[in-house]
Amino acid sequence: MKHMKPISLKDVQINDSFWSKRQRVVRETVIPYQWDALNDNIPGAEKSHTIENFRIAAGETEGQFYGMVFQDSDLAKWLEAVAYVLVHQRDEDLEKLADEVIDLLERAQQPDGYLNTYFTVKKPEGRWTNLRDDHELYCAGHLIEAAVAYDEATGKRKFLDIICRYADYIASVFGTEPGKIRGYDGHPEIELALVKLYKATGQRKYLELSKYFVEERGRQPHFFDQEAERRGEKEWFISHEYYQAHLPVRQQKTAEGHAVRAVYLFSAMADLAAEYGDQRLFDVCKTLWNNVTRKRMYITGGIGSSHYLERFTVDYDLPNDRSYAETCAAIGLVFWAHRMLQIEADSQYADVIERALYNGILSGISLDGKSYFYVNPLEVWPATANHRHDMKSVKITRQPWFGCACCPPNIARLLASLGQYLYSQCEPLKQIFVHQYISSEAEAEINGERVKLVQSSGFPWDGQVKLVISQNKPLKWTLALRLPAWSARTEVKINGEKLQTQGKTAKGYLYIERMWQPGDSLEVFFAMEIQRMRAHPEVRANAGKVALQRGPVVFCLEEADNGQNLQDIVLPEAAKLAGQFDATLLEGVYVIKGWGVRTDMEGIGDELYSPQAVSKVPIEIKAIPYYAWSNRDAGEMLVWIREY
Amino acid sequence: MKHMKPISLKDVQINDSFWSKRQRVVRETVIPYQWDALNDNIPGAEKSHTIENFRIAAGETEGQFYGMVFQDSDLAKWLEAVAYVLVHQRDEDLEKLADEVIDLLERAQQPDGYLNTYFTVKKPEGRWTNLRDDHELYCAGHLIEAAVAYDEATGKRKFLDIICRYADYIASVFGTEPGKIRGYDGHPEIELALVKLYKATGQRKYLELSKYFVEERGRQPHFFDQEAERRGEKEWFISHEYYQAHLPVRQQKTAEGHAVRAVYLFSAMADLAAEYGDQRLFDVCKTLWNNVTRKRMYITGGIGSSHYLERFTVDYDLPNDRSYAETCAAIGLVFWAHRMLQIEADSQYADVIERALYNGILSGISLDGKSYFYVNPLEVWPATANHRHDMKSVKITRQPWFGCACCPPNIARLLASLGQYLYSQCEPLKQIFVHQYISSEAEAEINGERVKLVQSSGFPWDGQVKLVISQNKPLKWTLALRLPAWSARTEVKINGEKLQTQGKTAKGYLYIERMWQPGDSLEVFFAMEIQRMRAHPEVRANAGKVALQRGPVVFCLEEADNGQNLQDIVLPEAAKLAGQFDATLLEGVYVIKGWGVRTDMEGIGDELYSPQAVSKVPIEIKAIPYYAWSNRDAGEMLVWIREY
Repeated sequence: MKHMKPISLKDVQINDSFWSKRQRVVRETVIPYQWDALNDNIPGAEKSHTIENFRIAAGETEGQFYGMVFQDSDLAKWLEAVAYVLVHQRDEDLEKLADEVIDLLERAQQPDGYLNTYFTVKKPEGRWTNLRDDHELYCAGHLIEAAVAYDEATGKRKFLDIICRYADYIASVFGTEPGKIRGYDGHPEIELALVKLYKATGQRKYLELSKYFVEERGRQPHFFDQEAERRGEKEWFISHEYYQAHLPVRQQKTAEGHAVRAVYLFSAMADLAAEYGDQRLFDVCKTLWNNVTRKRMYITGGIGSSHYLERFTVDYDLPNDRSYAETCAAIGLVFWAHRMLQIEADSQYADVIERALYNGILSGISLDGKSYFYVNPLEVWPATANHRHDMKSVKITRQPWFGCACCPPNIARLLASLGQYLYSQCEPLKQIFVHQYISSEAEAEINGERVKLVQSSGFPWDGQVKLVISQNKPLKWTLALRLPAWSARTEVKINGEKLQTQGKTAKGYLYIERMWQPGDSLEVFFAMEIQRMRAHPEVRANAGKVALQRGPVVFCLEEADNGQNLQDIVLPEAAKLAGQFDATLLEGVYVIKGWGVRTDMEGIGDELYSPQAVSKVPIEIKAIPYYAWSNRDAGEMLVWIREY
Repeated sequence: MKHMKPISLKDVQINDSFWSKRQRVVRETVIPYQWDALNDNIPGAEKSHTIENFRIAAGETEGQFYGMVFQDSDLAKWLEAVAYVLVHQRDEDLEKLADEVIDLLERAQQPDGYLNTYFTVKKPEGRWTNLRDDHELYCAGHLIEAAVAYDEATGKRKFLDIICRYADYIASVFGTEPGKIRGYDGHPEIELALVKLYKATGQRKYLELSKYFVEERGRQPHFFDQEAERRGEKEWFISHEYYQAHLPVRQQKTAEGHAVRAVYLFSAMADLAAEYGDQRLFDVCKTLWNNVTRKRMYITGGIGSSHYLERFTVDYDLPNDRSYAETCAAIGLVFWAHRMLQIEADSQYADVIERALYNGILSGISLDGKSYFYVNPLEVWPATANHRHDMKSVKITRQPWFGCACCPPNIARLLASLGQYLYSQCEPLKQIFVHQYISSEAEAEINGERVKLVQSSGFPWDGQVKLVISQNKPLKWTLALRLPAWSARTEVKINGEKLQTQGKTAKGYLYIERMWQPGDSLEVFFAMEIQRMRAHPEVRANAGKVALQRGPVVFCLEEADNGQNLQDIVLPEAAKLAGQFDATLLEGVYVIKGWGVRTDMEGIGDELYSPQAVSKVPIEIKAIPYYAWSNRDAGEMLVWIREY
């Protein structure tokens, strides 16, 4: 059942006019800034205390723990992002810094392998007493991910060794065997991390521990109830759904509860389905996938439509002005989609990755990399966002990152590791897949021979892609190209000659099997038209509205270009839309223009309600990519435009 | 400046096919039911303890106070409703019950006149220490209103005497003189009540005390701050705006804070403007009136668009799915409008009364009078109303009244006193005004002669009204008829002869001055067409939508008649709408039908987003009056319908 595996970060070098500058921002701005934050070296910023917590835990300084119960994970995510950055660009100073941090981790580690500053410093007697709320295994999971990444990037095993000791200790504490705690974390994360640790070390026990955590979840008698009883808790107000622990995972059919937790769990479930060849578990994943992507996802790839508990609500409930769509949740969706894709070569997974990347994730970070959205609404009217209590989560401008704790480092580690999402290969079938059209060089091995692909892509602004194959000798293998769902027409030329594609496609991939010659070149053209996207009619918030999309990019109207009261604008069905790239705007974006109409305010009095028909006047609308909104003055924004 | 005064309840006998049955429900169902509730005689109902609190305060039984700090006001509102009911239909048993309650009040009254069970029983040392939160003067205000009404209905002075002793005591405690508390209540109510007490007793000190409370509000140094400091409060989270105490009232230009409080205060301000001939205070009222009715009011007459703090938000923020529009607030709007109307004979005030009565107030009570809405949304999708935390205030069915405390008795007292909103007269100008077209008999005195008007109205289902004048001899006076804003055309015949109305109208009233003969009869015809109402373009929630209105009645679509997903329905601009009265439906309602379109679900797959154009199929829509929604099975409801 396991179909393919990603071509690893090491073997993919991104060199892209759109993405490379964003990776540079991570390296040059985000990582140094975050380091200063972790060390409380940013004047005026909220206190982090993260490094200090580890020093106290290591017994090197006196003091109290400060921060969230999951404060350690900030450092873990920073280390993971550093590792990805080092893969292609070793940096002595940065690596020295990371090594010192790893030494500190080792000194903060307890003799039994335990490594968590909150419990070591503040509540040593409280270890493993509140798995539901205390994020203990969650923090362990992030440390594991960081250690695996650092080992892969640098070849230095020390961090991995520290973390293996911790994982071994965890394995000795949890499980179904007598004397062990039969629990699991309130926030899934360690499950996917343990699969990574298994792959990095070859130690099957880590895979089995992951499987245990996943399968134990939601069983009766309910661990969270038993644990709460042991703590003497009388009642609690958050249902097990919030933790995806309302049912054993194999019985879950809809994505419930906290969106980030959900997709982290589903990622691990996909991992386990792949590793164990468990078709039934994969079917569960697909049911959940269909629920999320066909009923509970914004057009931006955002998920979780409720601020309260940052959670999924009900099918088709996707309000635009109160969308939560946390940046981290869209990132988690990419993690999950990436795993699904390796199991089943179906373009819908790569399409969702692309949708989230270019829209609901990228919207989370400003063009300069210095400010962030947690919450990514699809419609903003500052008057209500600033004054309505039920919109208090909506910010009308991005916030400086140091006020946040989870999304900024999550964006950093995703952007720094973007290379791993571009290609996969399937050894037995001699296939190389191109999932994302991002300029890059990738290397793979087919039959023991190195194959190199050099991709030059015009994405996201045009649909021209060139692929040059370099290998030492003719070699028969299959190149599989994703046909993006947004492209109505694809043309492929091999060495200038048009390829007949009929009959060569399956589940959104075009399979080109041939004896490739060194230097063979493909020109691929994806029709990248401006599309008026419509939502399923059950999405009441979008009734009668269209969203403009071109290629993978969703567009929006901003007040800066279109004036106030964007809801008043109507785009006639027949209106022609045309666009062009504007290199001077927002660091270079494609801009869509067309003629719509809006109310002629000349005829409008101050009555609130009137039977008078209103007349309309033309307005030239100007739409910019959604991800680029709120990089100018604060104002209104709108994705879904009324149509008639 | 003071223009007219209402023809009092005593002189107006309603005999109307639409309203009389609702008044009967109040008399036969609501009042007995509420009496049982106040005495904790309803099995399974929430405990009220109200009567018991008074018994404990009177020293007749032992026990603890139970209930809200404003629990006493439930009894006061019940007594007020009882008084209105007794005006036209004396009822020995009911009156005996009320008299016994009044005796109990007397026994619970303290030697100094104080009368509040919460403080007498529970917190005797806490009197007047937290005016901001504790509703002490608010409860006093409701007792005053009840006492005035009971005196007027029965001619028995005892209750009024009790309450005068209380009011005299209050006057000795509050004011600007040295030694007095320079405070006012967090919840305006006593201000309008004291004006009633002044009118009932002729004692000017009550008017002056009302003026003091109103003028003192919001001044610096701020009383609520000083008072909080005295209590040792360090910080509080609700701003003075919530209490309309953010500015002295004469400086307020927008309606802020808790909607019920706001309109109770504005009612008192209008009263004082009238009594003192204070044009500048009336101008303040008009500024606030324009803000509310032109920027912050639902088409149903509902006000207060935020569940959080039950408050006004910002101009044009009128979401339909999260409208709060508390029933009590619409009732308070009627109180205020009624007072504005007496000062300025402008039909806009009577129009708003009519709008609120037939829509946002009547929606608060079920047809059988047994269940209630506090919150009156204009759009309900049960899936989100039941599951979204930010919609938790929205109920999809009315709740049994005993779970509530404020709205049911407020509806009861309004319906029972409806007669006073129908007519006014202006003695010096010899004018009689007809504000509301409700079948009734009214008596007034012109030049010492009795004039009787017998009105037969087809409202709200047809625009035919007949008025017969009966008096002993020919008499010259002016009949002023409101021309409802929704009627595009009015015809008046006097004794069968068409009246030339040109030049006879001012501010929405038609003035007919003539020597009236005994038995003169008017036939008035108001064109009552189905209207497609549009909201001001700044109301973003209603962009591209229409609400159907016919006469004073706003219509809605219900799932029971139109299936699910009401937002999907579009009403073409050219679609003909026709209606008729259906005596068998919902106790008799006018029903509007027409052909709209909705998405052809045949062509819809399970993709969430698609560039495919969708085709439409016709659907015959059926709209019912908004007030009658949720009297069948629970389901979706929609007022604002998409148009194109």
